[in-house]
Amino acid sequence: MHPPTNRRIVLAARPKGEPKDDDFRLEEAEVPAPADGEALLRTLYLSLDPYMRGRMNEGPSYAPPVEVGHVMEGGTVSEVLLSKADTLAVGDIVLAYSGWQEYAVADAKGLRRLDPSAAPVSTALGVLGMPGLTAYTGLLNIGQPKAGETLVVAAAAGAVGSVVGQIGKIRGCRVVGVAGGPAKCEFVVNELGFDACIDHRHPAFKESLKASCPAGVDIYFENVGGAVLESVLPLLNMFARVPVCGLIAHYNQTMPTRGVDRVPMLMFAILTRRLTFRGFIVTDFSAQAADFARDMGQWLREGRVRYREDVVDGLENAVGAFQGLLRGENFGKLLVRIAAPR
Amino acid sequence: MHPPTNRRIVLAARPKGEPKDDDFRLEEAEVPAPADGEALLRTLYLSLDPYMRGRMNEGPSYAPPVEVGHVMEGGTVSEVLLSKADTLAVGDIVLAYSGWQEYAVADAKGLRRLDPSAAPVSTALGVLGMPGLTAYTGLLNIGQPKAGETLVVAAAAGAVGSVVGQIGKIRGCRVVGVAGGPAKCEFVVNELGFDACIDHRHPAFKESLKASCPAGVDIYFENVGGAVLESVLPLLNMFARVPVCGLIAHYNQTMPTRGVDRVPMLMFAILTRRLTFRGFIVTDFSAQAADFARDMGQWLREGRVRYREDVVDGLENAVGAFQGLLRGENFGKLLVRIAAPR
Repeated sequence: MHPPTNRRIVLAARPKGEPKDDDFRLEEAEVPAPADGEALLRTLYLSLDPYMRGRMNEGPSYAPPVEVGHVMEGGTVSEVLLSKADTLAVGDIVLAYSGWQEYAVADAKGLRRLDPSAAPVSTALGVLGMPGLTAYTGLLNIGQPKAGETLVVAAAAGAVGSVVGQIGKIRGCRVVGVAGGPAKCEFVVNELGFDACIDHRHPAFKESLKASCPAGVDIYFENVGGAVLESVLPLLNMFARVPVCGLIAHYNQTMPTRGVDRVPMLMFAILTRRLTFRGFIVTDFSAQAADFARDMGQWLREGRVRYREDVVDGLENAVGAFQGLLRGENFGKLLVRIAAPR
Repeated sequence: MHPPTNRRIVLAARPKGEPKDDDFRLEEAEVPAPADGEALLRTLYLSLDPYMRGRMNEGPSYAPPVEVGHVMEGGTVSEVLLSKADTLAVGDIVLAYSGWQEYAVADAKGLRRLDPSAAPVSTALGVLGMPGLTAYTGLLNIGQPKAGETLVVAAAAGAVGSVVGQIGKIRGCRVVGVAGGPAKCEFVVNELGFDACIDHRHPAFKESLKASCPAGVDIYFENVGGAVLESVLPLLNMFARVPVCGLIAHYNQTMPTRGVDRVPMLMFAILTRRLTFRGFIVTDFSAQAADFARDMGQWLREGRVRYREDVVDGLENAVGAFQGLLRGENFGKLLVRIAAPR
């Protein structure tokens, strides 16, 4: 039973600043047929993540950009509709990288079968997936949390930040989140168990953050940049560590910020307080995926790590949801539900 | 034989920007007498180092500032004139921290006896002393040089940079220095054995640096900041390491640089190229002093590490020499010869 049409979202133009509706195009195309060793997949969930903004730009970043006219890339949870691989059966649910579309053909070797009885399959895109592994490896390898230290987590209600802070609590840190708006802050404290969460939109943000970190900051998990970094920097203690995971405040920035060059100030802070700033992406630590799966699985079963998903229905709403993600409008791991499993 | 008068240089005022003559005062004072366990020292060599500029400022840096009216601090090689400690004899030459003065009393426990037959005693302030240990520990611990990598060293003719680059050569790196003026660059290549040295005062500095690093830069040993950092940043390879040891280009800066805030650009470089920036000072690695003494002693004996000293005569010339140091006018490790050993 081969489906008739594949709906897919392609990059129509490279966005300048905030991605506009016109930068994308919803197309219909034929559904491809799998060759030997491949499977035809139907997308159940599409993950929307901030890194995708970088893929829309020209020039190299982590990975080559998405070409104009090509399907936007992205992780998916998908169902096997047709299999020409021994390892996969029709009806299997897999973690794939199908992108922003309803159907895709993939090499079976690049797919990971999920066990729907072990955890909701959507978590393979969130707390048990790339964002969770990002949080785990960045915090433990670069942040190196020690009991009693203070950890500040930017974008604390987000897919990565929420996990970073909860692992910090498990490791015995005082954990202070930064999030946008009172609802997220309340969730971060009451549901996720952070010690405090400061609203970066509040006029007294800087003062509140300082007051919440009476012993300074030993680890700042950076995925925002901008005003949050600026406010944390004076609080960093001697030998503090800054895993640099993302800079969402700048992803849509087209013009450099005029005014004062703060690089010398940042370098002086690094020098005199012996700070470590280190960038990473999740694939740098892929050797730790098994440790992560073991630990995170256990923490979820024990209720020590919680998560929240923000699920948007329908491929046609992916662009709007992604635009909202860059404005901080999502509340939890952002997913697009494309179809229900049969 | 107690000397009659001690000449000393005190901090007369906190410099604003470049230190002026008026910010210092040459005083005469009584020579203090040693108590039990102490020794009276006569300064032979005073070390002048860029970090001293930071000590002249108010507010905490690595260490509390020098108080106005107090003797400027600094490492010295000194001779024991009177000893009330079992461990020291008159005539012993010691490494001390007497500051900018002719005589001082010190606790014998804080002094290290030097062996004048092993190496010229002045090297205890340079290649075998704090600058050498800074180079060794910063490069090996943070830079982590591997054979075949490219190492760029700022202030390559200076006390620290000259050692960094030579250790880099011993470790099999391609080593590119940055120095001010053709004479220093020639010395760095012909005497110290760097593969290249680029004059940062030359209009084509940025292009020449790039041309000298055809495989990019894996380690940038930072002790300058400013335009050198800006020129190296685009050349840094994936997973490059930047030990941040000093920022001499900014030590006299009183006003922030207007124009464009380059912090987002720097953070993006850290993020996407997974750079490590890490500040340090020599005392962070003092546990490695014995390893350093063993290795550096051997390298000096084998002629694999060379050094150059820039010796100025007379305490009264210390201020001018220090002002010149901040302008890059010294050529080699800057020392003030205060007296000859008896």
